[in-house]
Amino acid sequence: MVKNMAQSLPQIPGVRLSAVPAKIKNWQRDDLLLIEVAEGASVSATFTQNAFCAAPVLVARKHIAAGNIRALLINAGNANAATGERGLADANRCCEGVAQALGIQPTQVLPFSTGVIGEHLPVQRILDAIPAAAARLQSDAWQAAAQAIMTTDTRPKTASRTVEIAGETITIAGIAKGAGMIQPNMATMLAYVATDAAIPQLILDTLVKEAVAASFNRISVDGDTSTNDACVLIASGATGEVIGDVNSEAYAQLKAAIVEVHIALAQAIVKDGEGATKFVTVQVNNAGNSAEALRTAFEIGESPLVKTALYASDPNWGRLVMAIGNAGLENLDTGKISIFLDDVQIVDAGGRADGYTEEAGQAVFDKSEFTITVDLQRGDTCEHIWTCDFSHEYVTINAEYRT
Amino acid sequence: MVKNMAQSLPQIPGVRLSAVPAKIKNWQRDDLLLIEVAEGASVSATFTQNAFCAAPVLVARKHIAAGNIRALLINAGNANAATGERGLADANRCCEGVAQALGIQPTQVLPFSTGVIGEHLPVQRILDAIPAAAARLQSDAWQAAAQAIMTTDTRPKTASRTVEIAGETITIAGIAKGAGMIQPNMATMLAYVATDAAIPQLILDTLVKEAVAASFNRISVDGDTSTNDACVLIASGATGEVIGDVNSEAYAQLKAAIVEVHIALAQAIVKDGEGATKFVTVQVNNAGNSAEALRTAFEIGESPLVKTALYASDPNWGRLVMAIGNAGLENLDTGKISIFLDDVQIVDAGGRADGYTEEAGQAVFDKSEFTITVDLQRGDTCEHIWTCDFSHEYVTINAEYRT
Repeated sequence: MVKNMAQSLPQIPGVRLSAVPAKIKNWQRDDLLLIEVAEGASVSATFTQNAFCAAPVLVARKHIAAGNIRALLINAGNANAATGERGLADANRCCEGVAQALGIQPTQVLPFSTGVIGEHLPVQRILDAIPAAAARLQSDAWQAAAQAIMTTDTRPKTASRTVEIAGETITIAGIAKGAGMIQPNMATMLAYVATDAAIPQLILDTLVKEAVAASFNRISVDGDTSTNDACVLIASGATGEVIGDVNSEAYAQLKAAIVEVHIALAQAIVKDGEGATKFVTVQVNNAGNSAEALRTAFEIGESPLVKTALYASDPNWGRLVMAIGNAGLENLDTGKISIFLDDVQIVDAGGRADGYTEEAGQAVFDKSEFTITVDLQRGDTCEHIWTCDFSHEYVTINAEYRT
Repeated sequence: MVKNMAQSLPQIPGVRLSAVPAKIKNWQRDDLLLIEVAEGASVSATFTQNAFCAAPVLVARKHIAAGNIRALLINAGNANAATGERGLADANRCCEGVAQALGIQPTQVLPFSTGVIGEHLPVQRILDAIPAAAARLQSDAWQAAAQAIMTTDTRPKTASRTVEIAGETITIAGIAKGAGMIQPNMATMLAYVATDAAIPQLILDTLVKEAVAASFNRISVDGDTSTNDACVLIASGATGEVIGDVNSEAYAQLKAAIVEVHIALAQAIVKDGEGATKFVTVQVNNAGNSAEALRTAFEIGESPLVKTALYASDPNWGRLVMAIGNAGLENLDTGKISIFLDDVQIVDAGGRADGYTEEAGQAVFDKSEFTITVDLQRGDTCEHIWTCDFSHEYVTINAEYRT
């Protein structure tokens, strides 16, 4: 499939980054990322819905509620999850280390961890690495930052947009990591998006939720949700442009651009799904409401039988039908359902479409990117998600992850 | 892992079987099974919850509601699902063929199909094979019957019990098929269990539901539910023993034996799960109620990340914790959770248990059969399910199924 190479990202005045090696695991790479945010910036975030959420998530939620965030510290290689009281203490010690290095308060630091669950964080190695990270903060380190937060990712994920608002250029840059444990409600991933617009906290809080709903909550690699996921949106306020009204044209323009960056990052995660060889959009049309449209789309996008058929390039539409039937839609009239593979109609009125040929279906399934469209004829709501296939490589990656 | 070889099954007076080749697919094997039930027998069934249920399921549901069932016709190789009006007509024509051969009414025949979805049934080949099947009906054909209904199964699945009730020996025999698309609410499978006890229809209707709840609704291979599944319980009434009271000791004894046969068949399906190398019991103790106990157990038993760790014999308890956190339990206090691998405690108070060693966990995960026990400390309800691992072979089987 087409590999999305990471773009080089523009600088966001008011945001500086630094990636350093801290030997979180026994590897030779940058695995610690420090992000510094200018005084007066707004920072919002959404976090994993997993009840077993990790220590850094608990600490970050508390700190972000207090406001006035000035720094983010992210480590790869260890999730600091299921680590109990010591895990919380470890996350707090990391915040203290950053606070000391930058001359701020520990509550102004948001900690994030990703990696193996259930092992204690090597806090001393992180504390030892923080001063070097603080000394090297710079605005053009996005690429190194995207690399430092990778775990099973095969490539860094970056996206950016610019948008002209009232004659001023607003810039948005973002990075993300994640390739497995991907599922909605904070898909298993970390994402950091920054803009130089000035956005008041309450508006930014709404914006991050809307952006995540349109992007990371619409992707699935394996249906599992991790303990550590987070998406952070930073508005540094370095430009003169202030977005103070959600009903303004400026807000609509900025939101569109920010959502685009989130979608690009979310799609990059699916394309880099563990072992993925295909990128598939599942579009559900004419559903009774948004919830049932998404449930149907995810039932298809998460079915191991559908995903192995995608891997085999086998247009086994019986499995699509099986998945739709499993979505739990009340009083579903299967006799009204149509299914299309790109523009090839494969199912009509619940059965094989007249004129459908295996060759036509095969031609679509042979592509590395295509769309499965289901028409339910129950209403007028349309939703879509993005998914990937389930390959031998997925099993290999996840069977060998800890070794 | 230990392969459960099919037992030879006892005869059930009042039940005769016949397996013949009908060339449903291009293969050399018996693929059509006819079961004849004596006049006056009671027959109950439960069917798939999939909204896209197959044509034979729709016909069988209608016929069983009318009562007085005398025959069952089961074909492997074609599911007759998502086949629209023609599928219904095809299923009805099969019933007519059986009715003609046995001198009964078409509505006294239950049709069942399993195999590829979305292709029309080769009805003429089935009709051509029915007379030979009818001519060869015999009581000791259980083994051939179990083989005739196999699809991706690697071995036939049979189970039997006898139970003494009031000095009389009651016999129970059953067969099942299924290896993929396994999930609760009529796990993807077909099962036929018969006893020579006499059980009134209303009692039998309750009994089949209770037996399925304790067996087939507690297994998972891949989280997918098929369009065709059914479990049928036949009480031929050939013995003098009549079970007429659900509060009697006789009912309790018979029920226990019937449930045991169902559990043995359900476990045989998991052990033959597509590509499975491990058989794992997931036990959830001290849950607030049965629903949350089962939800937690299935969240573990269906997680691709847990299942690939099982395949790798990797006691990656972080994935267990992740799955528990995803079960959606309200106000879950993760600090109270314990996890055991057989009798090795791996998690205590939500974190790694003191004294746990990788070696001890590894020794359990190296076994082909073991139990994962989760203690939630939220109440006093315990539930269990059975699952298997997710292997390379699963991907291979499902990627190549139609070829």
